[in-house]
Amino acid sequence: MKRFFFKKVKNIKINDILKSLGLKNLKKNFNVNDINELNEANINDISFYNSNKYFESLKKTKSKLIITNKKYLKTIPKNKMIIEVDNVLLAVANITLTFYPNSLDDLFDANVKHLNSKNFKNLKFGYNVLLGKNVKIGKNCSIGHNTIIEHDVIIGDNCNIGSNVLIKNTIIGNNTNILDSSIIGKKGFGFYPGKKKNIRYPHIGSVIIGSDVEIGCNNTIDRGSLSNTKIGDGTFLDNQVHIAHNVKIGKNCIITGQVGFAGSSSIGNSVMIGGQAGVSGHIKVGDNVLIGGGSGVIKNIPSNTKVMGYPARNIRKFLKENKYND
Amino acid sequence: MKRFFFKKVKNIKINDILKSLGLKNLKKNFNVNDINELNEANINDISFYNSNKYFESLKKTKSKLIITNKKYLKTIPKNKMIIEVDNVLLAVANITLTFYPNSLDDLFDANVKHLNSKNFKNLKFGYNVLLGKNVKIGKNCSIGHNTIIEHDVIIGDNCNIGSNVLIKNTIIGNNTNILDSSIIGKKGFGFYPGKKKNIRYPHIGSVIIGSDVEIGCNNTIDRGSLSNTKIGDGTFLDNQVHIAHNVKIGKNCIITGQVGFAGSSSIGNSVMIGGQAGVSGHIKVGDNVLIGGGSGVIKNIPSNTKVMGYPARNIRKFLKENKYND
Amino acid sequence: MKRFFFKKVKNIKINDILKSLGLKNLKKNFNVNDINELNEANINDISFYNSNKYFESLKKTKSKLIITNKKYLKTIPKNKMIIEVDNVLLAVANITLTFYPNSLDDLFDANVKHLNSKNFKNLKFGYNVLLGKNVKIGKNCSIGHNTIIEHDVIIGDNCNIGSNVLIKNTIIGNNTNILDSSIIGKKGFGFYPGKKKNIRYPHIGSVIIGSDVEIGCNNTIDRGSLSNTKIGDGTFLDNQVHIAHNVKIGKNCIITGQVGFAGSSSIGNSVMIGGQAGVSGHIKVGDNVLIGGGSGVIKNIPSNTKVMGYPARNIRKFLKENKYND
Repeated sequence: MKRFFFKKVKNIKINDILKSLGLKNLKKNFNVNDINELNEANINDISFYNSNKYFESLKKTKSKLIITNKKYLKTIPKNKMIIEVDNVLLAVANITLTFYPNSLDDLFDANVKHLNSKNFKNLKFGYNVLLGKNVKIGKNCSIGHNTIIEHDVIIGDNCNIGSNVLIKNTIIGNNTNILDSSIIGKKGFGFYPGKKKNIRYPHIGSVIIGSDVEIGCNNTIDRGSLSNTKIGDGTFLDNQVHIAHNVKIGKNCIITGQVGFAGSSSIGNSVMIGGQAGVSGHIKVGDNVLIGGGSGVIKNIPSNTKVMGYPARNIRKFLKENKYND
Repeated sequence: MKRFFFKKVKNIKINDILKSLGLKNLKKNFNVNDINELNEANINDISFYNSNKYFESLKKTKSKLIITNKKYLKTIPKNKMIIEVDNVLLAVANITLTFYPNSLDDLFDANVKHLNSKNFKNLKFGYNVLLGKNVKIGKNCSIGHNTIIEHDVIIGDNCNIGSNVLIKNTIIGNNTNILDSSIIGKKGFGFYPGKKKNIRYPHIGSVIIGSDVEIGCNNTIDRGSLSNTKIGDGTFLDNQVHIAHNVKIGKNCIITGQVGFAGSSSIGNSVMIGGQAGVSGHIKVGDNVLIGGGSGVIKNIPSNTKVMGYPARNIRKFLKENKYND
Repeated sequence: MKRFFFKKVKNIKINDILKSLGLKNLKKNFNVNDINELNEANINDISFYNSNKYFESLKKTKSKLIITNKKYLKTIPKNKMIIEVDNVLLAVANITLTFYPNSLDDLFDANVKHLNSKNFKNLKFGYNVLLGKNVKIGKNCSIGHNTIIEHDVIIGDNCNIGSNVLIKNTIIGNNTNILDSSIIGKKGFGFYPGKKKNIRYPHIGSVIIGSDVEIGCNNTIDRGSLSNTKIGDGTFLDNQVHIAHNVKIGKNCIITGQVGFAGSSSIGNSVMIGGQAGVSGHIKVGDNVLIGGGSGVIKNIPSNTKVMGYPARNIRKFLKENKYND
């Protein structure tokens, strides 16, 4: 997985990683390329295992170097090298910082400049538009007043960006509209709750938005931690929608006002979600699902079903059992 | 119904309309003035009928020219001329575009300029305020920093507009406050869900805000599709409220934080709505209604009642049946 | 309680106050220092009593001068002087305006200027940053583009403020981050609902944010009416959170996306709240409480408990009784 937005330290070796975890050096040092989730990792990447939910990915991963804890030592295939730690996710955070030391802060881009239209083809733009270094914008786009697009963002052709929008760490397809005051690509709300102090972890993922997408006003779409947050082609989002880190939304979905997705939830194609509904973290919703307004989805929803309620269940039964004459 | 914000093509004739729908020309061509809902249409306007919910309006409409589908052919009074189509709303969208070709896009107003205080009487304003052409602002108003008011917007006397506000396609009465970062008058979230692609439809309505109104921070209030979105005199809205297209809210209502209204819902006078409640589309809520916080209103609510719950019902019964000692 | 942000009229005497309430003068006039809640009032302050919920505070208050209505005349200790009125809160509003005549409006700060970095130590800042008079910013801070910080705001060391942020009437500790487009310190949504007209009341409280806090994007945090809105050290808030006037949130809490708190609710330490949950007004939540996503909290929650549901109750029982196989 290529990371466009964060600078990676070169020549990280296994002993740098072990040192960052407070572990003993190996006698034979060697290069490690990057850190990635099991299904994204290449042969020279380090990866991690902390739940049997990911057993299928573990069997298939190309990574040879797996961080895990005592509980899963025997689950890891014998051809892998294991790094045993007490807290897997904390170790992942430390290693991510070893590779990407600037990924924890999420300060404003201090290198933006006022847009110079000469650099873009047939671009319509407003007052006080600020662009970071290496921003790419396709042809026939428009960008409203006071909008800020930070370094390395890529926007396709025929896209319309509203006013007061803030975009960072994001790649956008063609014919996509981002409406006013939406904030896209900030770090997710991820950290380890501690009794004494909450510890933030770095977010090196991006936001990948497809083509023919519409993002409404005042949306917040956070970037992924290790993987990306994704919004598929043809999907429409209404106003005040919140999408947390690592969420994947499929193609041609309709997400109405004030809906929220907790981290790492995954939504199929052609899903319709009514206003103010919420989807819990790590939930999988299939294709062609309808979720009624106000629902709270706390378990996986199979394809081709209609649900409603809190917790969400079969919509017909919910409505039948909640029919009041007063 | 007068449309202030969208340019209408002149001299549209019935055969232009039939052509846009892929239908055969009439032998006798004639002028059509505009497209409107049944209750707003004048004698020279075209209108449409796609649900028996609107039967009363059908009986009273001045329009002589009704678009409908096979199902309702016999419902239309005999003194009307009928245009039969497969998909009524898609036809309405096409005809709207024939009259108002610029109504589908919703780009930022590229003709705004920095405010020139000479044009206004006793106006207090901040840095970087942008005003479109023909904006009217009454006396003794204030406008905060970075606020954008697009072309043809009308604001009455003694109004206070906060900072970072965006207003378009809107008419505002006297003594009304719009707080920081609210977005008023963008197109609604209306489209025809298609299996392959969602088709947007044009929004030629406005937002009409009364006098003595307060709109909180970070609100989103969308303009109507054919009719207007309305907020009555003396109504107060808290922060993060979302109001979809065509919603009508009466006088002297109190709408607390994070409440949402789906499209075309209609709220009476002196209605109080608790935080995070939601009202479904096309629902009617009467006068003097209290809706408890967190409620989900999915059926019409008669006047002088108190409801709570999801779905919302009699508040006493809801609370009695949901009293837990744990 | 010191009020940093609102100018107090000097030399207010008891007969000025009685006059503002339409009551008769006392023969012996004397100075009144300020108006405060019972637990914050000093010996020369006026205070008020309108609910037996505050009986403990009444017994302990230093105030000698209590506004109340007929119902509570006998509850007030005999060593206090009583001012009897019909509507206690309306009287409080009037007296607050007598002391602080500019506290009802909440106009933008017209005296801000573009930031002059010479006044601050090692401050990183963006374009178009506006600062009011007497703003204090500690060392090693950053402030993003288009952010507005109004008069007298105090920000500690090592704080990062995002872009498009608006801060007023607020004091912030050290190492605290405020993310993009949040609005902090505006007046609360407080008023007296009237049949003919809603009457706003003044807000002279502040927002007090601790150290090591994180406030997400698009949050709205209103200042208190008489007391302050508070967010404790080490507490993290996600995006689109709404915090109403007078809310107190403890230390080390985790509040996820789209959560809302109604006025005067009080949350303990180390509380975790799932997405889209809501807490009603004047509710007390203890320490170490977990509130599941989507919950509606309408009664006090004791410490060391886990709740979920609408209304919120024991989480295990809620999940057990709401387990569906469809």
